[in-house]
This record gives sequence, C-alpha cells and structure tokens, in this order.
Amino acid sequence: REELEQTHMCSLNSSCTGYSEGLSAAKLLKEAGLTVVVLEARDRVGGRTYTVTGPKFKYVDLGGAYVGPTQNCILRLARELGVKTYLVNEKERLIHYTKGKAYPFRGPFPPAWNPVVYLDYNNLWRTLDSLGKEIPANAPWTCRYAEQWDNMTMKELIDKVCWTRTAKDFARLFVNVNVTSEPHEVSALWFLWYIKLCGGTKRIFSTSNGGQERKFVGGSGQISEKIAEQLKGSVKLKQPVVRVSQHPGGVSVETLTGEKYQGAYVISAIPPGLTMNIHYEPELPPIRNQLIQRVPMGSIIKCMMYYQKAFWKDKGYCGTMMIEDENSPISMTLDDTKPDGSCPCIMGFILARKARELIELTKDERKQQICQIYAKVLGTTEALKPVHYEEKDWCGEQYSGGCYSAYFPPGTFFQFSRALRKPFGRLFFAGTETATKWSGYMDGAVQAGERAAREVLHAMGRISSLEIWKEDEEAQEVPSQPIRESFLEQWLPSVPAFLSVMTISTVFLGALGLSLVKPSMRPHFFK
Amino acid sequence: REELEQTHMCSLNSSCTGYSEGLSAAKLLKEAGLTVVVLEARDRVGGRTYTVTGPKFKYVDLGGAYVGPTQNCILRLARELGVKTYLVNEKERLIHYTKGKAYPFRGPFPPAWNPVVYLDYNNLWRTLDSLGKEIPANAPWTCRYAEQWDNMTMKELIDKVCWTRTAKDFARLFVNVNVTSEPHEVSALWFLWYIKLCGGTKRIFSTSNGGQERKFVGGSGQISEKIAEQLKGSVKLKQPVVRVSQHPGGVSVETLTGEKYQGAYVISAIPPGLTMNIHYEPELPPIRNQLIQRVPMGSIIKCMMYYQKAFWKDKGYCGTMMIEDENSPISMTLDDTKPDGSCPCIMGFILARKARELIELTKDERKQQICQIYAKVLGTTEALKPVHYEEKDWCGEQYSGGCYSAYFPPGTFFQFSRALRKPFGRLFFAGTETATKWSGYMDGAVQAGERAAREVLHAMGRISSLEIWKEDEEAQEVPSQPIRESFLEQWLPSVPAFLSVMTISTVFLGALGLSLVKPSMRPHFFK
Repeated sequence: REELEQTHMCSLNSSCTGYSEGLSAAKLLKEAGLTVVVLEARDRVGGRTYTVTGPKFKYVDLGGAYVGPTQNCILRLARELGVKTYLVNEKERLIHYTKGKAYPFRGPFPPAWNPVVYLDYNNLWRTLDSLGKEIPANAPWTCRYAEQWDNMTMKELIDKVCWTRTAKDFARLFVNVNVTSEPHEVSALWFLWYIKLCGGTKRIFSTSNGGQERKFVGGSGQISEKIAEQLKGSVKLKQPVVRVSQHPGGVSVETLTGEKYQGAYVISAIPPGLTMNIHYEPELPPIRNQLIQRVPMGSIIKCMMYYQKAFWKDKGYCGTMMIEDENSPISMTLDDTKPDGSCPCIMGFILARKARELIELTKDERKQQICQIYAKVLGTTEALKPVHYEEKDWCGEQYSGGCYSAYFPPGTFFQFSRALRKPFGRLFFAGTETATKWSGYMDGAVQAGERAAREVLHAMGRISSLEIWKEDEEAQEVPSQPIRESFLEQWLPSVPAFLSVMTISTVFLGALGLSLVKPSMRPHFFK
Repeated sequence: REELEQTHMCSLNSSCTGYSEGLSAAKLLKEAGLTVVVLEARDRVGGRTYTVTGPKFKYVDLGGAYVGPTQNCILRLARELGVKTYLVNEKERLIHYTKGKAYPFRGPFPPAWNPVVYLDYNNLWRTLDSLGKEIPANAPWTCRYAEQWDNMTMKELIDKVCWTRTAKDFARLFVNVNVTSEPHEVSALWFLWYIKLCGGTKRIFSTSNGGQERKFVGGSGQISEKIAEQLKGSVKLKQPVVRVSQHPGGVSVETLTGEKYQGAYVISAIPPGLTMNIHYEPELPPIRNQLIQRVPMGSIIKCMMYYQKAFWKDKGYCGTMMIEDENSPISMTLDDTKPDGSCPCIMGFILARKARELIELTKDERKQQICQIYAKVLGTTEALKPVHYEEKDWCGEQYSGGCYSAYFPPGTFFQFSRALRKPFGRLFFAGTETATKWSGYMDGAVQAGERAAREVLHAMGRISSLEIWKEDEEAQEVPSQPIRESFLEQWLPSVPAFLSVMTISTVFLGALGLSLVKPSMRPHFFK
C-alpha cells in the first residue's frame, strides 16, 4: 500500500524524535507558512521524553525531565505552550554516600575534609572547566588540542589530573551521571565539550542554579504533545522512515508501512546513530556514513520509588543522594515528589556499566536492591517499604537506542564531529546531539530543531545566513545566577603543586634551620 | 507491491553480506535439503569482497583478497568451488621506510639495529601474544583480565609496554594495518583477542606463512559468485532488508522494495553495526540493541597502482613496503602483479585516520601523492609513471560501512561481546565478526556462516548441539609452518628488565672493582 502525499514545502522526518526536536522544527516552519509533515516512528510523540499517567503516581517522566537556568530555548517554548515549571526539592541536606558511610552536605559537590583530597577535587573541577574553555562550542574540531584530547579517554584524563583515589572515584560518578557512560568509553575532547556546553561542571551537576533545578508541572511530555496538537494532521505516528531518496527538485521519504512522502527538504531529528535505520539514495558521504556508526547512545534505567511519606525530609535530607558503592544499582537520586507534596518519591538512575549488568535482573529484583541501598544511605528501614515502583529501561528502546544522549568514543570527535550537522543536499540535521548549548538535553533539542528549520528557510531563500543561529533571551521566570569561582577555588594549588611547594619549603627551611643552629651543636650532626 | 514467498524451512538474510558468509550458510542449508532465500542489499553478491574486471588490469580485488595457511574454512570452500590460489610475491626484500629512509629487510617484521629498540620490539610482540593467550577465543568476556584490558585503549597498552618511540610508532602501524583503525580507538581486550584469533602477531602480519601469503587466481569475488550460481533463483539482489518480524511459528522479512518473505528461521549475515538498518518486531534485547550501536567499521581506501614493468623487482624489492611517514597516504603495500607476471601492480592501503583525511581529495590527487611516496621509498622516478590507477573507498559504502571489519571501542567488548552471536528467537547471527578464528577475514566469514547454519539445523532438531562447531582439517595445498619463538625471542629481557639488570650489575661490578683496586690506589678515589 502506497500513499503519496505532496507537501507544499517541507517534509519533516522525526522518526524517533529525541526530546521533541522534530516537532519544534516543524512548529517553526509551519509558523513561517510552510506545509510540513512529521513522521514519527513510535505510536506516540516525545521520543526520549515520555510522561505516563497512573493512579499511583498521577504522572511521571520516564525520560528527560529536568530543566534549569540558561536553558532558555526549552523554557521559552514551555512558556509559550503554557507549561509551568516547579523547583526540585533541595531545601534539606544532600547526602554523599561513600565507603559505606553517609555524609550529609550542601552545595553542588560533596565537600572533602582531608586537605589533600580537597585540593584534588578543587583542581579537578577547575581543570575540566578551563580545558573546556579552549574548545569552540560550534567547532570543537578546531580546538588546538583537539587531536590530542580526542585520542585519550576521560579515564586517562582523570588519571592524569587526579592524585587521590577519592577524587578519581568521584570523577567516575560525575561522568556516569552526566553522560550515562563510563570514563573509559568516552573521548576526553567530547566530554570536555559536553560539560562546557552546559556552562561548566557546577552548572551541569547542580540542582539549584543548575541543570536539575526544575521539572515541568504535569510532565515534560506535554511539550511535544501540545506542539503535536497544534500540528494536528501533519504528525503521522507509527511511521519509521526506511528510505530517503534525493532527486533533482525534491526528496522522497518512505516509511516502514510503505507510505511515501514528497517534500522539498527533509530534517532528520533522529539521534545520529539511529539514522543508521534509514537507507539513503544517493548514499551518504563517507564521513557521515562512518560517523553514524560511531555515536552510541548511553545506558540508563530510570527508577522511581514511591513511598507513603517523604520520610527523608523528616530526617533533614532533601532526597538527593550521590552513591559511590559498586554494589549499589543507583548512583544518583533526586526527590521526585509532586510540587503539591503528593506522591512522595525518590527518583534514581542506574547508569552505564550498572545498567548493562542489572538489565538482566527482573524488575522486582531491581526494586529490592534499590530499596536496600536507600535504607542504608538514608539510615532507615522506612526505605524498604515503598508503595509503588516505576522504571524505564532506555537501553532496550529501538527508537531511542539509549539515553540521555549519544557519546563519542575516543578518536571519533576530532575527525567526525564536523559532519554532525553538515547538510547533505536537501537533508538537514537536528537532534540534541547537534546543538551548541546544552547538547544532550531538551534545551539542545529545541535549539537544534529550530536551527535546522532556519537552515531550511535559508536554503529556500527566505532568510539570510545570519538569521540561522539565534540566541534566546534569559527566561525571566527562571533566572540564572552567575557561577563564580571563589578566590580559593581559583588559586589553591593542585596536589602536585602543593607537594612541590612543601618539598621546596621543607628543604629550604631545613637548610635555614641548619644554619641557625648554634655552632657548638653542629659537630653532633656529623658525628 | 507485496510479494509473499513461502520458503520451506529457512529464510536467509544476507543483505550486505561481508565476505560471503550468508551464501556459505545458505549453501550448507541447501545441501541439508532446506529451502533457502538469500536477500542481498546490493546489485551484486560478495559484500566486502568485490572483484571487477577491466582491460587495463584483467581483474582486481577491490575488497577482501588475501588468504593464507590455517584459514582452512575458506580454503576448503575455494577448493570445492575450483578456485585456485597463488603466492603473493615475497621473493625479494621487503622495505621498511622510516624517518625518511628505506631499509630493506626479510622476515615478518622490520629488524632493529639499536639493541634497546631490538629488545623493545621483541618484548612488544611477545607481550601481545602472551596476553592473547589469556583470552578464550569463544568467550573473551570470561578472561580474568577482561574488564581491566577492555577499559584501556591499545594506545594505552602500547604506551605501557613500549619504551622507545620507534617501537611505539611501529605498533601504531601494526594496529592500523591489522584493523584499519587507530590504537586510541580500539579496546586492548578486543585487539588482543583479534590478533590471537589469527594465530598471533607473526601469523597475522606475515606474507609467507601468514595471512597475506596468497590470493585467488581470478579474484576472491568468484567464491560468492559460484555459490550464488549454485543457489540460482534463491538469491535475490537489490533487496535490503528493512524489517524482521518474529511471530509464533515463523519469521517474516520485508525488504526495501516491499517484498515479503516468510521463513522458519533467519540468519543475519550482516556486520553487527549494519543490522541497525533493520526494524525489529519484537524489539531486540537491550544488550543487543546497544551492542549494534557500538561496533563501527574500520576505515580504508584500497589503492592499486599499475606500471609498465615490475621495476621494484629489478631493484631487488618484492613490493612489500611498510611506510612510517605522516605525509604518506599509504602505510602498507604488497606486490599485486598477476601470477603470470602480467599487469605489474603495487597494492597499497590508506588506513584509519589517513583514510578519513584523504577521502576529501580527488582520486587524481590521491594517485599523485601515492606515486610520490612510492618513488621515495623505492628510490626511483619510475614509480611516478603509472599506466593505470584503481581505488576503492570502503568508508562510503552504505552496505559495508567500512572495511575490513568492525572494531570495538574501549569498554564495549567486555559487556557486549556475549551478545555477538547469541540467537534472538528465530534470528541467528553469522558475519565474520562472530567468528572464533580469523574473525574479520573471509575465513571467519565462512566459519561463522556455516556455524550459524548448523545452529539452525540444531534448532530444527536435525543435529545435536555437539555438531554445531566444526574444525576444518588443514588445507593440504596451503600447509602452515608452525610459528616458533626462538630462544632469544623467548628469553631476551624487556627494556626495563634490561635496564635494571644493567643498573644492578654496574653497581655490583663497580663495588667489586672498587674492592679489587690496589690499596695504594684507593686514597686517590677519595681525594
């Protein structure tokens, strides 16, 4: 069965949209007066955002959920669609659980009481941020250290930068949490770029004033659903694209069900690795043909544990736990209670290596293990009595491939990143992976979708090349506080610098001391 | 348009067959009395083998070409099909070109005259081979060092093992040549396993008594073509598979042209990464869903330069060049003259990083650069006067993705390799990447194809599980010589061991010498 549909100007292909990038592109183009079609692989819109409802939890975001200051694209879109945000609870203390003990703290990172570890942590964050400043957001391959940094994994960089086991271990968790992959799996160049695009180590990792500050009231899935409503009739569900054929004058797109769509342009809003799903005529250029084999999606199982009561708050904890324990399935948690205080819930991530291990268990086995570790970390058996459990394994999703985002293994970002959003004829590329701000996030998805839409408008001669890239104004309802480095953070020595200073001063002071001892004492030293 | 074809027992899916694995599986099953269909994505069979003919060169293998001793699966199949082999010329001396100079030599590896470099080389090969012995060929994830070695790149391993720049540089070339990727791109565990499967560092790298000993008279493409003739009518060309749907009682397969095939079982003979091309119902298990995003194909442009005369032989060179020069497109060459002496030719590989760089040039620019380096290495301007040039870029091939084979980036082989050939319902996996001997080669392709076919026979209750894996007898016409480690190779110290021995003995002999000097002399030392 073939269905041929002539679209006026532009056919939008967003099979497996990640975070609504295809829809945001379609929305912009429709507003510019074009005819668009959105082809969605799944039977729902939203891609890596997925809000489900149920009596036990009202609604829950099983995928992308968090937004925060400086994410002005997604915040503007949400505002326009009438979706409000609320603050993720961080009133009480956070917990850092390590070596079998829980240490409550406040601030973005767990503090260190050992002065050597303190210096080591400080130098780690400072180094990651300062290396990131060397990398151009929109052209990482032009960084003067691009080749060198791309040829090493983050594990190698961490081992070079950190002197203490404690800092190295926490750095691993930092990589796990931010990019759902292991330090030894990812290119250092790519990871430094990724962190930089989010405004640095503090911004990306923080709840207050950071990437996890807020969630959407009613769930993030509404964004895509509301756009889909506006585009009603143009959004075709259950239409995985299997072929994109370019010919003089247009593009034709075929879907798995045999439908055919004709358009002047196509925007691919699929994570780059999943565009392997499509057969191309003519074939992709060699670098893109190989790029899309080299960008796997991260590994995560998102787990929501519901309780009768937010008992952690009674104990003075906000619900944020950073858990360093090889036997804990969960590495990071946040309070996921609804803004009105209903449905008390801890949201936890099973990340990277652990997702791949624990996916072999049953849902109930995972639930048990998670409760056990929450009981240990929060120090109460109340954690053993959940009233409900929801989880979502993203590794098994054919049309996401994983979550949150694609990562670049070593040796690929330098030679292949230039092809990430380089148009191929009438085919343009959106997808949060192609963003230059908050790539991997909903915000990056919207930026990328709208940029790709404007690239199409430019190709049609409707706007100038200078109008393709736009910077959003700061969202007034979610203002950002500048992230400042304190004097100490800026000037404290690293561990090796500290050790050399110590050595030199010991030697110097020792020699000084020696020359000051009374002459009568001196012979004793040489006896 | 839908075409429904009921096959008796088994539907073979070999869209983008690499090296004829799908065909060898189909052949075995047909001989067992089953009805098979082979679905091929391209308009030709052979996949990563591709023999073309032309007046200037008679015939040429643009893809997989070399065979050698211990590759008994492909040799048996060739014998059965009446395809003969001939020896690649290695009568005269090989050349190692490094630091702008050509050094003729004989043997598998270039020799080293500097004793420290000599020890370093020796220790490198010995270490790679001995680490490989720790890895079970059929279950690399069970190696006791699996996690540790998988978490490092080959670059890290090389930097640990080698002490001299010279050895490190040659080790990079060794990785480039064997797996068409960079040391910093590949998992050490995977690379050690890959080399082990080929019988070790000498076997994989050698022409005589190694992987490059022979080629097929008339070209390797004949193997697939001859099987396809035998299977006539069952091989469907231009049928890229887009969907595999499993249901109780069978599997249905849909192709890009809308044809549908029904079978009891399906064998996928596609490189694992290219199975991303297919939509699955039900979805793949999570580990396989993520595995197939993590196995990119290597990067290579194969270049054949034809000359009036095999002038290199007149100069006492066989045509093998190992070229270490960042400005040389080619890293490795072999004589590609026909066995009867006609069509004198040098075959050269543009590998890994260089393939990605030089793909941006025109064919003629590459040709010029290649002639220039051949002239330098062979020391004659005759190299500047080719009569013809053929090349094949495999990076741009949609249905190969690259060549020779898939590689595993760090962190993936340990957690994902167990899923490589694990059947998923009625779907079985061939492909040279799933072999346990000469994986990545034509030999591995045949082993894998036949093993998958016997897995199907076992699933049908026709053979026992013990009959799935078969070891071929040694091909009489291509006998292997055992690879022996000489006494020196086995017992010479590594550079650090040598240095500590030297230090200890210097100190010891110095002390000894000191105690032996005449008493009258001694005060002088302390004056």
